[in-house]
Amino acid sequence: MNAAVTSAPLTVDRLSVNQITISQWTLAELVEGCQRHGVSTIAPWRERVAELGVARAAKLIGDAGLRVSSLCRGGFFCAETDTERRRALEDNRRAVDEAAQLGSDCLVLVCGPPPGRDLAAARAMIASGIEALLPYAIDSGVRLAIEPLHPMAIGERSAIVSLEEATELALRFDAPHVGLIVDAYHVFWDHRLQERIAAAAGRIVGFHVSDWLRRTTDTLQGRGMMGDGIIDLRAIRGWVEDAGYRGPIEVEVISRVLWERHADELLALVCERFTACV
Amino acid sequence: MNAAVTSAPLTVDRLSVNQITISQWTLAELVEGCQRHGVSTIAPWRERVAELGVARAAKLIGDAGLRVSSLCRGGFFCAETDTERRRALEDNRRAVDEAAQLGSDCLVLVCGPPPGRDLAAARAMIASGIEALLPYAIDSGVRLAIEPLHPMAIGERSAIVSLEEATELALRFDAPHVGLIVDAYHVFWDHRLQERIAAAAGRIVGFHVSDWLRRTTDTLQGRGMMGDGIIDLRAIRGWVEDAGYRGPIEVEVISRVLWERHADELLALVCERFTACV
Repeated sequence: MNAAVTSAPLTVDRLSVNQITISQWTLAELVEGCQRHGVSTIAPWRERVAELGVARAAKLIGDAGLRVSSLCRGGFFCAETDTERRRALEDNRRAVDEAAQLGSDCLVLVCGPPPGRDLAAARAMIASGIEALLPYAIDSGVRLAIEPLHPMAIGERSAIVSLEEATELALRFDAPHVGLIVDAYHVFWDHRLQERIAAAAGRIVGFHVSDWLRRTTDTLQGRGMMGDGIIDLRAIRGWVEDAGYRGPIEVEVISRVLWERHADELLALVCERFTACV
Repeated sequence: MNAAVTSAPLTVDRLSVNQITISQWTLAELVEGCQRHGVSTIAPWRERVAELGVARAAKLIGDAGLRVSSLCRGGFFCAETDTERRRALEDNRRAVDEAAQLGSDCLVLVCGPPPGRDLAAARAMIASGIEALLPYAIDSGVRLAIEPLHPMAIGERSAIVSLEEATELALRFDAPHVGLIVDAYHVFWDHRLQERIAAAAGRIVGFHVSDWLRRTTDTLQGRGMMGDGIIDLRAIRGWVEDAGYRGPIEVEVISRVLWERHADELLALVCERFTACV
């Protein structure tokens, strides 16, 4: 079922470093580190942008000549009350503003966990939340990127837990405005992954990589560096490229173990494994 | 998307206690406990049967008038070498023998994790393993029951991680000989679950229940008691019944926290939550 792997080896030009991978560093330190290591693209997280202020962050990134592949994250659309939903919408609008200010046209959506047992109701809330946010995002020139998470994240992070589901949801909106993220960590287990990725063609606005460690004991911060686990990242990259995606590839390794490492060594390892394993 | 729930409330007649739920007890203690609590059906685990010896276990269960809904477990078909595959086949034949001796017509298959990164190859090995075991199982009158596990179990337990996939696999074999288990814990997250269960009609040979705790920190032994988590067990039971399954419903709560409880109190709680929540 695996297609023959014909993808050309990657160079570091395609690499975007997702900030959480090297959370030892502030945004300013990350920008400097990327310059030292020849990395041209980053994906910041909102709370780390806030530490510096959006305007200063945008200037810092711009002055360094870096690109921003996406901002992490908007979403968390499910809420029990109108007040909470309104608050979520306001926060999502601020996230859109921040993405635009940082020069990114892509806001990643982690859609939020279900408030109760009714998953269908939660999923309907998520669709409504995206619909409510959409006009503002269009005006701001920011595309919304639904990221399906791993099914184990359903209780705390998102009711959207498969690529099939995220694609069906994205297809309810216009292609220029709503896309999706293929994060290998979240979707690699799908026995029809190649077909699911093909079905998402035209909607893929980001590709994220890390690895699934055979023994995963931390469901939130237990990801592996590319090459240390069981995901065939090169095959998946081939399928994503076959579906037409040629943009930056974000390395998003959320790992308490790796955060103990020296940050410069970790970034060097990211660059090395990116070209060797993806 | 949820169908209106019209299922009649359950009585304890439908309950089968999977032994791991009350792993404080030996098999002999479980048999006595079930008699005290009016439970008529159990699902033993092979290692706990082995503590007593299969013949003595079968006599004990038979003398107590209990039924055995399934034996847990065969499987683990993936292996790097022919020798390992042969050893797995021999062990699976012993598991078939034990199921037959215990008076169960159902051997649960946990299919085994992939040896490497090639998931398609692992899945092909699993299909071959089932095919190799099948003649022996048919001769013994034991049906093989593929249990799709949660995607988070892929690294350590099984490459078969969705109901859709398990159904496609089961359909490669004849219905009287190969079925599947719907375990709510493993499959509840699927946004097309109702449809997937309908597609498995005629193949469902077991229905397992427990609950997904909103914050799941233990991927192997962190399940919740029915009612303590976010799974709509009553809706899923309705879909399973709509697909024609009317057999025992196994409570399989694998929880280090609950294993600290007094076993009789835990079994009383199982019975109470079974009728209240399933």
